[in-house]
Amino acid sequence: MTTPTCADSPADSFVDSFAVDARRVDAWLAEFAALTEPGSGAGVTRLAYTPLERRAHEIFARAMTDLGLKVWTDAAGNTIAERPGTGAPRPVLATGSHLDSVPGGGRFDGIAGVVAALEVARCYAETGARHRFPVWFVAFAAEEGARFGQACTGSRVVAGLTGARDLEAKRDAEGVTLAEAMRGVGLAPERTAEARWQPGDCAAFLELHVEQGGVLESRAKRIGVVDLISGSTRFRLRLTGRASHTGATSMHLRADALAAAAEVVLLIESIARDSGHLGVRATVGRLAVRPGSITTIPGETELSVDLRDVDADRQRQTAAEIVARARAICARRGVTLAAEALADASPVVLPRWLRDVLAGACAAEGVDYQVLPSGASHDSQMVNHVAPAGMVFVPSRDGVSHVPAEWTSTEDLVLGIRILATSLAEVDRLLGSAG
Amino acid sequence: MTTPTCADSPADSFVDSFAVDARRVDAWLAEFAALTEPGSGAGVTRLAYTPLERRAHEIFARAMTDLGLKVWTDAAGNTIAERPGTGAPRPVLATGSHLDSVPGGGRFDGIAGVVAALEVARCYAETGARHRFPVWFVAFAAEEGARFGQACTGSRVVAGLTGARDLEAKRDAEGVTLAEAMRGVGLAPERTAEARWQPGDCAAFLELHVEQGGVLESRAKRIGVVDLISGSTRFRLRLTGRASHTGATSMHLRADALAAAAEVVLLIESIARDSGHLGVRATVGRLAVRPGSITTIPGETELSVDLRDVDADRQRQTAAEIVARARAICARRGVTLAAEALADASPVVLPRWLRDVLAGACAAEGVDYQVLPSGASHDSQMVNHVAPAGMVFVPSRDGVSHVPAEWTSTEDLVLGIRILATSLAEVDRLLGSAG
Repeated sequence: MTTPTCADSPADSFVDSFAVDARRVDAWLAEFAALTEPGSGAGVTRLAYTPLERRAHEIFARAMTDLGLKVWTDAAGNTIAERPGTGAPRPVLATGSHLDSVPGGGRFDGIAGVVAALEVARCYAETGARHRFPVWFVAFAAEEGARFGQACTGSRVVAGLTGARDLEAKRDAEGVTLAEAMRGVGLAPERTAEARWQPGDCAAFLELHVEQGGVLESRAKRIGVVDLISGSTRFRLRLTGRASHTGATSMHLRADALAAAAEVVLLIESIARDSGHLGVRATVGRLAVRPGSITTIPGETELSVDLRDVDADRQRQTAAEIVARARAICARRGVTLAAEALADASPVVLPRWLRDVLAGACAAEGVDYQVLPSGASHDSQMVNHVAPAGMVFVPSRDGVSHVPAEWTSTEDLVLGIRILATSLAEVDRLLGSAG
Repeated sequence: MTTPTCADSPADSFVDSFAVDARRVDAWLAEFAALTEPGSGAGVTRLAYTPLERRAHEIFARAMTDLGLKVWTDAAGNTIAERPGTGAPRPVLATGSHLDSVPGGGRFDGIAGVVAALEVARCYAETGARHRFPVWFVAFAAEEGARFGQACTGSRVVAGLTGARDLEAKRDAEGVTLAEAMRGVGLAPERTAEARWQPGDCAAFLELHVEQGGVLESRAKRIGVVDLISGSTRFRLRLTGRASHTGATSMHLRADALAAAAEVVLLIESIARDSGHLGVRATVGRLAVRPGSITTIPGETELSVDLRDVDADRQRQTAAEIVARARAICARRGVTLAAEALADASPVVLPRWLRDVLAGACAAEGVDYQVLPSGASHDSQMVNHVAPAGMVFVPSRDGVSHVPAEWTSTEDLVLGIRILATSLAEVDRLLGSAG
């Protein structure tokens, strides 16, 4: 399939027929941003499988119901609104993203893609748009791995990549399992198999997302087309040394679990920065010190490692190298090391034909786009296992994300939504004419 | 003054006349150990200026009242019981230690010295012991620096080394000031000047304490006589980098506050281990990472440094060196550093004549003692500013302290209490005959 020419395509006329409303987009973003854990400080804290995340899904569902769409929430908490097409009931086209956040995150990560879906749905309703395939507007649940270590739980369920047993095993920092958290907000982890999308259910999934990095900004591009999504391996290291009195214990008699952890943190950084690992991103985002008293030598530390790579083999080799070398550091210090896998996802190359559709939509809008990989994980990465997925990025100011300062201009977001809508229409046309 | 010969001294006959009761000692230790914050895990958590610490002081006060002693609590929360002497009302002799603990600490640190005071007072009462000088049995408040950074608050007040202004300035991790915490348990920070011991009030203070290190155990000695107490300088470093997404942010564009902190932790360790700093003990006991999410590069870290030295000048020079070199590390990484002093105490050489009394008591008991410095801070360090102070150490199993596993055998403790009692009697005799 070649890049379609959009000069006189239905997609072109379709998008011209309705206007993405910047004020509506801003209002949606503000409404979701207000749903943050009281007392959690700046930014948005709306963690996976909490009542606040459910509240956001209810707002999404209510808006879609108001537009006359059929709306349901599956056993994993994904909320789906269906607008019927003029043709057969299956396959569908789908678009959306997620509504949960990291602790102290921003108002765009995930939300932008759901707001895009809301805005497209509203434009469809206002213009009485016709499309051959039914369209699903999707808000995935629990995309962020911040709470349970595992990212994209809702879309993993949809893709058949996780299930009841896995959900009973993964725990948050308080020891609550994913399954318990799901039940706590009225969901059914034991029935997640029913939420799975079967191959053929969905012909294409398009996701708009903020870039979360600085590539678009540095190249002064307003739109990014994602070619591949990095894999991620996450694991936890627990270092056990010997706690004792800071004043009474000689330096040479210590087994300081924090000093050992400090070496491990720098080891991880140095591996990710050396020439043999270009493209690897490795981070220790959490480090807990016990007992955490100014006058007690740390007896135990626990740190979490997040490793990203676009090369699946190197990703796993690097993780193994980190654990082996951390073990050697600890052994030298009389500290024991225990490693526990938290989550693992392979890099995914997104289908070329959907990238071409997105590129064609940019051409139709007269926009110069940038093809780029995504360092972050996304629901598209999971969905791509059961349906072709494509991603359009809009710029993140200063390249930052997962922080309160995360920002994307309304103008860029509106442009991204237009590209998304044009692409959806073009996929409808392409697949419809093919059938 | 020379080491007294104890062959036919009153001290000798005095101690022969009563027996330290091992079961009573164990029972006291168990009673205090039970006073731990519910849900705080293993060991004892009874922090400074909490209702639990007050409860421990009430138990001490009740026991002393039951023995017919006059008991009062001063404005700083120190509880003092006075047994009249046969001579003038001043000066007094004093013995005691503290009743608060670090988080997850042991049952001996401080408590052993208070239990020793309880046991000596009970033996005095049972035997109708006579002494020329009144004896004060003292439970100091808030010795541990774990909560507010500053150690020995109760004994600092007694020594005139802290006061209302300082107490209003020092804060715990929740932002509660020392003064607020004191008021919260019914104490009067604004009246602490009244709690000060005037020079001449106390002729000698003797403190029994567990060693908290491994010197006695490694040399198979059951009693230590402390010659000097290390000084301590404590400060907090706050490192501010740039939080962002772990997957989307290139390694070379990061300002990772945890990686910078890891370098600082290892710097501090290496300084304390190098040949120019033999005798220095430096520890990072606390390290907080914000936002503390697995998928966010740490934007801020805060760490506490505890530095001990027996050389006052080098102690301050080393602290300044750590801050300067940490600043250079941070500058190289695009991270900013802010340093804040928490507490500072100079090393103290304990008076030779009191060491000689303790050594003489060991000789009288036929015990081989070890003269050693204390790496830990103690109330004696503060009291020594207003009254001559002496310290007797009993061994800590495996040299550990500030942990649940902290342990001293009852036999060693009983022996230490006998040495303490003999020494008190000897000081009474020496000073009485001198007057």
